Amino acid sequence: MSEPSPFTRPPYVAVIGEGDPRGPDAQRMLDWAEEIGRDLARAGAVVVTGGLGGVMQAASRGAVAGGGETIGILPGADPAEANDYVRTPIATGLGVARNLVVVTASDAVIAVGGRHGTLSEIGLALRMGRHVVGLSSWRLESDHRLGGPRVHRAHDPREAVALALRLAAAGPAPSE
Amino acid sequence: MSEPSPFTRPPYVAVIGEGDPRGPDAQRMLDWAEEIGRDLARAGAVVVTGGLGGVMQAASRGAVAGGGETIGILPGADPAEANDYVRTPIATGLGVARNLVVVTASDAVIAVGGRHGTLSEIGLALRMGRHVVGLSSWRLESDHRLGGPRVHRAHDPREAVALALRLAAAGPAPSE
Amino acid sequence: MSEPSPFTRPPYVAVIGEGDPRGPDAQRMLDWAEEIGRDLARAGAVVVTGGLGGVMQAASRGAVAGGGETIGILPGADPAEANDYVRTPIATGLGVARNLVVVTASDAVIAVGGRHGTLSEIGLALRMGRHVVGLSSWRLESDHRLGGPRVHRAHDPREAVALALRLAAAGPAPSE
Amino acid sequence: MSEPSPFTRPPYVAVIGEGDPRGPDAQRMLDWAEEIGRDLARAGAVVVTGGLGGVMQAASRGAVAGGGETIGILPGADPAEANDYVRTPIATGLGVARNLVVVTASDAVIAVGGRHGTLSEIGLALRMGRHVVGLSSWRLESDHRLGGPRVHRAHDPREAVALALRLAAAGPAPSE
Repeated sequence: MSEPSPFTRPPYVAVIGEGDPRGPDAQRMLDWAEEIGRDLARAGAVVVTGGLGGVMQAASRGAVAGGGETIGILPGADPAEANDYVRTPIATGLGVARNLVVVTASDAVIAVGGRHGTLSEIGLALRMGRHVVGLSSWRLESDHRLGGPRVHRAHDPREAVALALRLAAAGPAPSE
Repeated sequence: MSEPSPFTRPPYVAVIGEGDPRGPDAQRMLDWAEEIGRDLARAGAVVVTGGLGGVMQAASRGAVAGGGETIGILPGADPAEANDYVRTPIATGLGVARNLVVVTASDAVIAVGGRHGTLSEIGLALRMGRHVVGLSSWRLESDHRLGGPRVHRAHDPREAVALALRLAAAGPAPSE
Repeated sequence: MSEPSPFTRPPYVAVIGEGDPRGPDAQRMLDWAEEIGRDLARAGAVVVTGGLGGVMQAASRGAVAGGGETIGILPGADPAEANDYVRTPIATGLGVARNLVVVTASDAVIAVGGRHGTLSEIGLALRMGRHVVGLSSWRLESDHRLGGPRVHRAHDPREAVALALRLAAAGPAPSE
Repeated sequence: MSEPSPFTRPPYVAVIGEGDPRGPDAQRMLDWAEEIGRDLARAGAVVVTGGLGGVMQAASRGAVAGGGETIGILPGADPAEANDYVRTPIATGLGVARNLVVVTASDAVIAVGGRHGTLSEIGLALRMGRHVVGLSSWRLESDHRLGGPRVHRAHDPREAVALALRLAAAGPAPSE
């Protein structure tokens, strides 16, 4: 027990967004996710996703291209549901409750676009004290003055990655 | 199996908000939650909460005063953690993942104020196709045009209850 | 807050078993579950089940016949999946993880027959400190000497109900 | 999407058992777990555990010594709770419900000794169609004839590893 750990843990950054993006912005979301995945990997971060298609797949593909590690936290019970760029699939069998695991397992979260599932992950991330970086994603405002973790808006993938890495290094911010 | 059900299910409406409200708005949130609970009960709805203190307790107390039923979906494993106005405590042992159960068990959700935990419940509710009524709560905007369930803003407890009952009757709206 | 609770909580007893019993014992399991549900209700206990068919439905039907309350903790997101004898459906959206809620919400558990799902509920019940009464169900033996909660074998429905009510009154036994 | 996956997934084998083994058998359980972890790693399998101490730590330490990968599925929200031999910590925030993830994420499960938590994982594994190999662990018998996954008894670590790898290769057995 007193031996030193053989591992230094790299930052884990979740990239969340639509599994099936549609509409005029869809390709841009996928391109951004791929760029984010690649830049995270090059910076030495592990990319965590929900393991399925769309933004999750694009971010994982980018991370693999960048020489990095990818973890996919799947809603179902079959690891074969993971996209081809997930190196470490975690089949949970939890359904939507796997969204909690995606964000809790990560030190920071980048949301790229996203619909209701992404919103649920943003909410859970903040609840668990994880900062969130949003790129063309949900804007949240509270009628009350709140401290603790929040959604930081980025304007491009590069800024999103830089922000997420800085926030991941700073550690969790207890929810108020 | 072909016998008719002995039960007609009333609408289930979740009331969510802070367990420990602070600041200048705290008492107003509690008063509103109690009024909402009472009016829901008078209208025949079952009031679902997270079972603990603050807004959850105020809504449950109001519902009991209004002659209604209260269900408390607790994060811990001990039903005795429920506040005194929960008639049916459900101890889950799930921690934060119980937030998913609070909203999934309900036909509509009323958010009264709230911080990060409430936001996570709003996100999960929309993900599960439940409409949300917000009273001095989170304002959410997406950069993308979304259909499906959404947060309806109410201006007072009476409007919140009327909206929630109408939405509960309309049934779930699949998330896009 | 210092007002006395308006409610005295009755014992909650889960009845678990197959949702689709087959084989020569199937009818006996259903008859036993119905008798158990009825006797629990007559003794003032609330009957908790997984809310679906087979043993869950039979126990709920018995409880309704006995004038009691029934709670159904459903794996899916639609309360309409509950059988007709569930008075209080709790749609969880949790899939198999709802098995944890069924047993944690209860003060004691009666297993009537059962296959792998029932075994998972027995294991989770013991882990959560809930005693289990088994009627023609799984026999569990450990190579190690264990204290804490365990599976008590009953020989008929009457003995199962008496045992469960006694164990529910005694309170949880911390898992070792 | 038509590009070949860059990864060939190795078998994932969970090693489960007490986090704090006590009694005269404790050291034997730890030695066995370490040997099992090492032999799994040498055979190319990824070792999955609950990430904490005792048997989980011993199996992870063995796997690291054998040159393999280790995943720790933690109950809490802090990855720093993982023992020093977990290369990939997954903080879930799920409490006991993380037991479902440990076994669902794995192709086969080896139980070394174990108390109630281990029993819950065995039950969940069988429910999810994962075969279990038991080494001085729980003996389960059903009053009913069951097909599907089951607990295979091994007599020593070597046999446990060989059995688990064979079962992992055979794929899941749907629960009956």
